[in-house]
Amino acid sequence: MTWLELPPGTGFGLANLPFGIFSVPASPSPVPGTAAGGTSPPPRSAGAPRAGAAIGDRVLDVAAVADDLRLPLRELFGGPVLNRFLAAGPAAWQEARERLTEWLTSPAHRAVVERHLVPAAAVRLHLPFAVADYVDFYASRNHAENVGAMFRPGQPPLPRNWLHMPLGYHGRAGSVVVSGTPVTRPSGQRWEPGAAGPSFGPSVRLDFEAEVGFVAGVPSRHGEPVPVAGFARHVFGACLVNDWSARDIQAFETVPLGPFLGKAFATSVSPWIVPLDALRVARTAPPRRDLVPPPYLRDGAEPWGLDLSLEVRINGGLVSRPPFASMYWTPAQLLAHLTCGGAPVRTGDLFASGTVSGPGRDQLGCLLELTRNGAEPIVLADGSRRAFLEDGDEVVISATAPGPGGEVISLGAVRGRVAG
Amino acid sequence: MTWLELPPGTGFGLANLPFGIFSVPASPSPVPGTAAGGTSPPPRSAGAPRAGAAIGDRVLDVAAVADDLRLPLRELFGGPVLNRFLAAGPAAWQEARERLTEWLTSPAHRAVVERHLVPAAAVRLHLPFAVADYVDFYASRNHAENVGAMFRPGQPPLPRNWLHMPLGYHGRAGSVVVSGTPVTRPSGQRWEPGAAGPSFGPSVRLDFEAEVGFVAGVPSRHGEPVPVAGFARHVFGACLVNDWSARDIQAFETVPLGPFLGKAFATSVSPWIVPLDALRVARTAPPRRDLVPPPYLRDGAEPWGLDLSLEVRINGGLVSRPPFASMYWTPAQLLAHLTCGGAPVRTGDLFASGTVSGPGRDQLGCLLELTRNGAEPIVLADGSRRAFLEDGDEVVISATAPGPGGEVISLGAVRGRVAG
Repeated sequence: MTWLELPPGTGFGLANLPFGIFSVPASPSPVPGTAAGGTSPPPRSAGAPRAGAAIGDRVLDVAAVADDLRLPLRELFGGPVLNRFLAAGPAAWQEARERLTEWLTSPAHRAVVERHLVPAAAVRLHLPFAVADYVDFYASRNHAENVGAMFRPGQPPLPRNWLHMPLGYHGRAGSVVVSGTPVTRPSGQRWEPGAAGPSFGPSVRLDFEAEVGFVAGVPSRHGEPVPVAGFARHVFGACLVNDWSARDIQAFETVPLGPFLGKAFATSVSPWIVPLDALRVARTAPPRRDLVPPPYLRDGAEPWGLDLSLEVRINGGLVSRPPFASMYWTPAQLLAHLTCGGAPVRTGDLFASGTVSGPGRDQLGCLLELTRNGAEPIVLADGSRRAFLEDGDEVVISATAPGPGGEVISLGAVRGRVAG
Repeated sequence: MTWLELPPGTGFGLANLPFGIFSVPASPSPVPGTAAGGTSPPPRSAGAPRAGAAIGDRVLDVAAVADDLRLPLRELFGGPVLNRFLAAGPAAWQEARERLTEWLTSPAHRAVVERHLVPAAAVRLHLPFAVADYVDFYASRNHAENVGAMFRPGQPPLPRNWLHMPLGYHGRAGSVVVSGTPVTRPSGQRWEPGAAGPSFGPSVRLDFEAEVGFVAGVPSRHGEPVPVAGFARHVFGACLVNDWSARDIQAFETVPLGPFLGKAFATSVSPWIVPLDALRVARTAPPRRDLVPPPYLRDGAEPWGLDLSLEVRINGGLVSRPPFASMYWTPAQLLAHLTCGGAPVRTGDLFASGTVSGPGRDQLGCLLELTRNGAEPIVLADGSRRAFLEDGDEVVISATAPGPGGEVISLGAVRGRVAG
């Protein structure tokens, strides 16, 4: 039990303890007399982005507490990104969780810790890590079949390689932004049905994709595959991803080199990275596989399916509840595949699941599927219809997981509004 | 004229001055008495990777000279990668070229400069910059048509989008290695012709791709396209790229998401980044285009075609002479396309041309084309035949460009040996 009062039903209890990067914006109008010449110094590194942990409706300034307590841990939390901590590996991650738990439960440190708790409502959240390589997979069978049925009618809905291995492609790491960043509608070339040729202009089929991302901490050696069983030795935790997609730009460019500018304009991630350790209770068996995969892709003794319940809202209204437990390929298989040819993992690598779609009509993870490529618009809470996203629309993807003792683990949310 | 004696016909004269990162390996057997307790201190930062410029058969320790002369320039050349210098932009790049030229021509600084010239044969060269995002294009029409004719017989050789825009995809930045790094043959899933299904194992169709890469220095703002005319404001220079390709792994995975693990195991780059300024004389008009592209892709008043002559050698024997001047899309068009939807450019972004293939049978930039997908093996200098690369094979791609007054500008070489 923590001495801190937690809001009822918070998904940010002691069993979660996700990490992120926050800053406390400078007060808009400083009190006269407290500036350079004043007597009270500004709070330590006020305004500078720094490491935090979410607890209830507060953010704990982890580096400041470790500093005050003169713990070696503070070395790992310096700087404006989590990369040093991510690189430190499972023993350090575990140590940090234990220290945070101790701080928040033992009365001994309460005075120090309380000084460094900031209301979550008062902070600005930043991109939590410097993204090294970003890979997007295609691991939902429902999603792949729905897309195949739409774009390759009359053919088998799954590509012939799909059941043999997780398909993926590299995305643009430099376009990854933190939740809350406005997303500018991209321009590009698209060939509208019935048009005599392609034209250049703003996308008219802008979509979201609800995904779960995994953040690597410990690098691997170039040339050495990471086995399925090595997943938790390299991956720190999970976040939510909105892989914004311009379907019209994507459709025209995608053969033969795959998705490129239809995806490269923006990818949003949630600000809190939930440690794998907080998702232990959420681990679950993946669905039955049709084919026995090659040895490097076989599930270990404890498979890495995850029972995460996603929700997608547009302008506040619920439009879908994608179940991550339905994913055909687990995140451990994704990493094993990514590295099976020797590609190295670096600290800050982000790999995402691809659109999470369940079997139900209300479990689809993008508008392409929800509206059948725009043919059957959905009706939003305000009664307006959407085939694809309009300027000003806000998409919020959130998720929870079961935690120990009935506690809920929140992955927070990734939100983004479309700017015209 | 420089006071330094240059080897006849060097491609690293005063008109070139490419930048890289080098170190001087510690002597294998230190002379007794000169270690910690000795009187002569080791040379400044001996062994540490640092910025250098190639001149003749020497490497100039740029930071050390700038340090001795107390020039502000030294700030830009600190650290083990060129990124700070790359980010500084065209005025700083020009300033650095002028200082280097002054150092190497004026007798005034000769004593200082001579102290910091190291024989090129004595240095180790490192990856010259931290790679942010890596994009590979497909800008050679000959290459695209040859590949199309092989894999889509009976259909038009070019995909329907090819003449409208430069096609590309994101590669794995973490797999980019410097010339000389051994390349491990990747394993992966491939479906051999006639086999009942896919199998996992080492690639049996390992190939090179001779390409030219461009290195961005000055970032762009997310959401703001870089026009064709903005190329030289963002891009520092060019290098050579070998985009190693496992054709069998690539073939099985590539539909529908494009190249992934067939490329992600390794990409080699040459160690010297040749400034765009050194390629002024090499600028040339690109080939006639069949279609008028949309305004964002139109050549400026001075188009960015480049007359670079590539050579590919396997185990020392010349196998091809791909002419970069034949490329359909120029590097300025590649960058304009990459950013037309608002994707940001970061310092250290690398974008490569794609395989450079000319119209001639002796101008093809990969074995896939040279051997018609393995059907017509080539004969190497030692009489052995190659359909694809064998373990132990060394591939060297080099290039030169015309410089001022008949001087040759060398892009150096990217070399790599296949490790089994």
